[in-house]
Amino acid sequence: GLADMAQRSGLQARVAVVLGAQWGDEGKGKLADVLQERFDFGVRFGGGANAGHTLVIDGKKFAFHLLPCGLVQEHTINVLGNGCVVHVPAIFDELEPLTEAGIDTKGRLKVSDRAHLLFDFHKQVDGLLEQGRGGNKLGTTKQGIGPAYSSKMTRNGVRAGMLKEPWEEFEKVYTALAEAHERMYDVEVDKVAELEKLKGMRQKMLDEDMITDTTYLLNKAYMDGKNILAEGANACMLDIDHGTYPFVTSSSTTVGGVCTGMGLSPDKVDCSIGVVKAYTTRVGTGPFPTELTDDLAGGDLPRGAPGTEIGAYLQKVGGEIGVTTGRKRRCGWFDAALMQYSVMINNYSSINITKLDCLDELDEIKIGVAYKSKSTGERLPAGFMPSTISGLYDVEVVYETLPGWKTSIAEARTFEELPSNAQAYLNRIEELLQVPISWIGVGPGRNQMATKGFKA
Amino acid sequence: GLADMAQRSGLQARVAVVLGAQWGDEGKGKLADVLQERFDFGVRFGGGANAGHTLVIDGKKFAFHLLPCGLVQEHTINVLGNGCVVHVPAIFDELEPLTEAGIDTKGRLKVSDRAHLLFDFHKQVDGLLEQGRGGNKLGTTKQGIGPAYSSKMTRNGVRAGMLKEPWEEFEKVYTALAEAHERMYDVEVDKVAELEKLKGMRQKMLDEDMITDTTYLLNKAYMDGKNILAEGANACMLDIDHGTYPFVTSSSTTVGGVCTGMGLSPDKVDCSIGVVKAYTTRVGTGPFPTELTDDLAGGDLPRGAPGTEIGAYLQKVGGEIGVTTGRKRRCGWFDAALMQYSVMINNYSSINITKLDCLDELDEIKIGVAYKSKSTGERLPAGFMPSTISGLYDVEVVYETLPGWKTSIAEARTFEELPSNAQAYLNRIEELLQVPISWIGVGPGRNQMATKGFKA
Ligand SMILES: Nc1nc2c(ncn2[C@@H]2O[C@H](COP(=O)(O)OP(=O)(O)O)[C@@H](O)[C@H]2O)c(=O)[nH]1
Ligand SMILES: Nc1nc2c(ncn2[C@@H]2O[C@H](COP(=O)(O)OP(=O)(O)O)[C@@H](O)[C@H]2O)c(=O)[nH]1
Repeated sequence: GLADMAQRSGLQARVAVVLGAQWGDEGKGKLADVLQERFDFGVRFGGGANAGHTLVIDGKKFAFHLLPCGLVQEHTINVLGNGCVVHVPAIFDELEPLTEAGIDTKGRLKVSDRAHLLFDFHKQVDGLLEQGRGGNKLGTTKQGIGPAYSSKMTRNGVRAGMLKEPWEEFEKVYTALAEAHERMYDVEVDKVAELEKLKGMRQKMLDEDMITDTTYLLNKAYMDGKNILAEGANACMLDIDHGTYPFVTSSSTTVGGVCTGMGLSPDKVDCSIGVVKAYTTRVGTGPFPTELTDDLAGGDLPRGAPGTEIGAYLQKVGGEIGVTTGRKRRCGWFDAALMQYSVMINNYSSINITKLDCLDELDEIKIGVAYKSKSTGERLPAGFMPSTISGLYDVEVVYETLPGWKTSIAEARTFEELPSNAQAYLNRIEELLQVPISWIGVGPGRNQMATKGFKA
Repeated sequence: GLADMAQRSGLQARVAVVLGAQWGDEGKGKLADVLQERFDFGVRFGGGANAGHTLVIDGKKFAFHLLPCGLVQEHTINVLGNGCVVHVPAIFDELEPLTEAGIDTKGRLKVSDRAHLLFDFHKQVDGLLEQGRGGNKLGTTKQGIGPAYSSKMTRNGVRAGMLKEPWEEFEKVYTALAEAHERMYDVEVDKVAELEKLKGMRQKMLDEDMITDTTYLLNKAYMDGKNILAEGANACMLDIDHGTYPFVTSSSTTVGGVCTGMGLSPDKVDCSIGVVKAYTTRVGTGPFPTELTDDLAGGDLPRGAPGTEIGAYLQKVGGEIGVTTGRKRRCGWFDAALMQYSVMINNYSSINITKLDCLDELDEIKIGVAYKSKSTGERLPAGFMPSTISGLYDVEVVYETLPGWKTSIAEARTFEELPSNAQAYLNRIEELLQVPISWIGVGPGRNQMATKGFKA
């Protein structure tokens, strides 16, 4: 009913989570921005400067890589939770354009004292590791994310709280970690330069009381009746545990990561929304069952092979180029089998379908409805996702074909205003995923969102 | 009421979680064993062979380090979830005594194909890293846990599913990882020996279909109406994010880790029980505010200083010696301030107080009810836990003193049967934590559990 869907839309949640449900770049930023109006806090719970939310405000584009995009809304406090890895210079790089645009950010950004710091040498090592992989590159963003989490696990990582200790103490742990990297990876680290740079930034952070116990802050805020919006970075299939390892990021990007990464217990999370493109994209290497293989899209088939035009077409109309990396994204049909797995892991309260408008001109639209094993011919059960790369390459997709709607949906603001073929497409997706659709993206603009089953 | 507490006791849960609420060794194994009777699955969701559950069955002692202790109950299927790091030989080391005792384990152990393998060289490196820390040892168990999680994050880790691939493929990824460790840590790894050993064990695992997609298995079981018990290893204060870093283990030991480490969404976890000793212990180094400092207990004060006898006494009557490590545990009073933090992070449905009998002979019993900052004199708010080691050492504990009960509670089976001073002690704890107590340990025996507010 209406009440139920209003709840599932995130608009009434105490703690709502926006999660990427595929391989990233689903357009989480837009939903987060729309929801943020009624949330007091905006929180990142994992990852580093490898996210790529783009917001367009008054015609001005803001790209968020590390910071929560709630910062553009002045009523919010924004948090980098304990699960994040924080490159201190990136904080200031991203605050600056906001300040320039007249947005007051002072005192509105809080960094968890339990978050790990990501240093320049983590990036340096990331590049080396990727080089060392030769033909088996993971396609990392070389932002140092993996090495920073690796330091965390080795327990010689440096947490942000150390910046509040006497500078000599910080220097000591920084130097120990830098030297460990020099030894392990046979590199030279310019420690003096990085320490110098950090010393100045540290002062600014201390002046603004930026580093704090955000676990306590968020739990206290919750108790005080504040609303909290957690914005996921990356996506389900890039999760360190549940993704297509090793082609993943090094953090928990699924709903469990919200709890580990901000210290709020699971029972407090009352709404999680999976953000899903109306088709599928993937950046970098790794298996991609519903890919419309295309040389332009980065696939193996020669130009002109079946499906290639559509892959290239989606890439063009969808503007599928990474914000953080500048890389072109591979494109393919909506993969319901993948999404059934994503739903199993996250149990989304509802789904936000984005970029439905990008399919406006297609004659026919396919949905991957199931996986079959090439080697055994068996259909894999719903929710099952092969855990190995070879298992994923062994997968053959079973498709259904639906007719296109061949008209612009840019002006629709409710499900009912969509052409019937678009409605049928969404209904079929709901049926396959057994999760209701709440929000529908019908264009890049902030107001280009249609609702289904509730009033915004 | 009765119905509510029955729910909070775990006895009616679809998915229950048993979590260590302090620094480990709380006696999680006993509660898990008691609950397991009505659960179809027993699951470990994180860590490796660094847990230390001891079960005494028919006078025979079984020590579990890696495997779920549900294995002793033949109606159960037991799972090492994707969040675990698995040393393959440890599996067989722990299965053997069970088989010898006549327990049929065949087909009853499932290892997630997404769990990471922990190799001998991870242990080798763990030892080296600890040595390299000089006077700043973390007190790790040298089981290779940290290095294995570090490999996972670096994304050259080898997941258990690789054992199902052609042996040459496994050899390739194993060798790449081993060589990376040789380079990074300047060690020599006996790759031939380990591969040889693993080859035989792999065959046994394949024969028993031991390696499987446990994410799907557990979600399917849940859908089919089965009950799942997740048994935590380690404890809240040893959590990689929320613990007293760097004196922590390298996995998520708090309730969020259940979701990331077994792939069940948070809404499915309907009961989490915090297991808490009636006093506090800690093994190895690191800050410990309520410690009864004693040279015998590993503290700094000379023998005979105030409190030392009680610390040593608790160590003796509580048998506070590590199962996995053989190390003596440091002992101290119940720390309600620590527990308020633990409750904030995990929001336990109820609490199992263990080893209450160990306080039977004391004249007076203290409870640490709050932390004060030594440097500012301020009382810290409930739930607040300093995130840095220096912050924790700056803490002064505010104590309350309660009278002891000076009589054996070994025969009590309900809260009402406890002496009134014991009841008062528990009531005060409930009041401080704002979480109801469900189970009360009154002796080491399997049946020595009293209940509060429900019927077992
Ligand atoms: N055409 C269209 N573009 C959209 C829609 N929703 C979001 N976008 C655009 O898609 C891009 C979002 O991608 P990105 O920010 O990389 O994704 P995120 O990291 O998940 O936030 C931005 O350029 C948005 O303006 C939509 O419904 N239709
Ligand atoms: N005296 C007493 N011993 C207990 C009680 N509950 C558990 N134990 C013992 O405490 C030990 C449990 O510690 P351990 O297995 O290391 O803890 P775990 O890792 O949390 O399961 C075992 O030897 C148990 O027999 C209790 O209520 N009273």
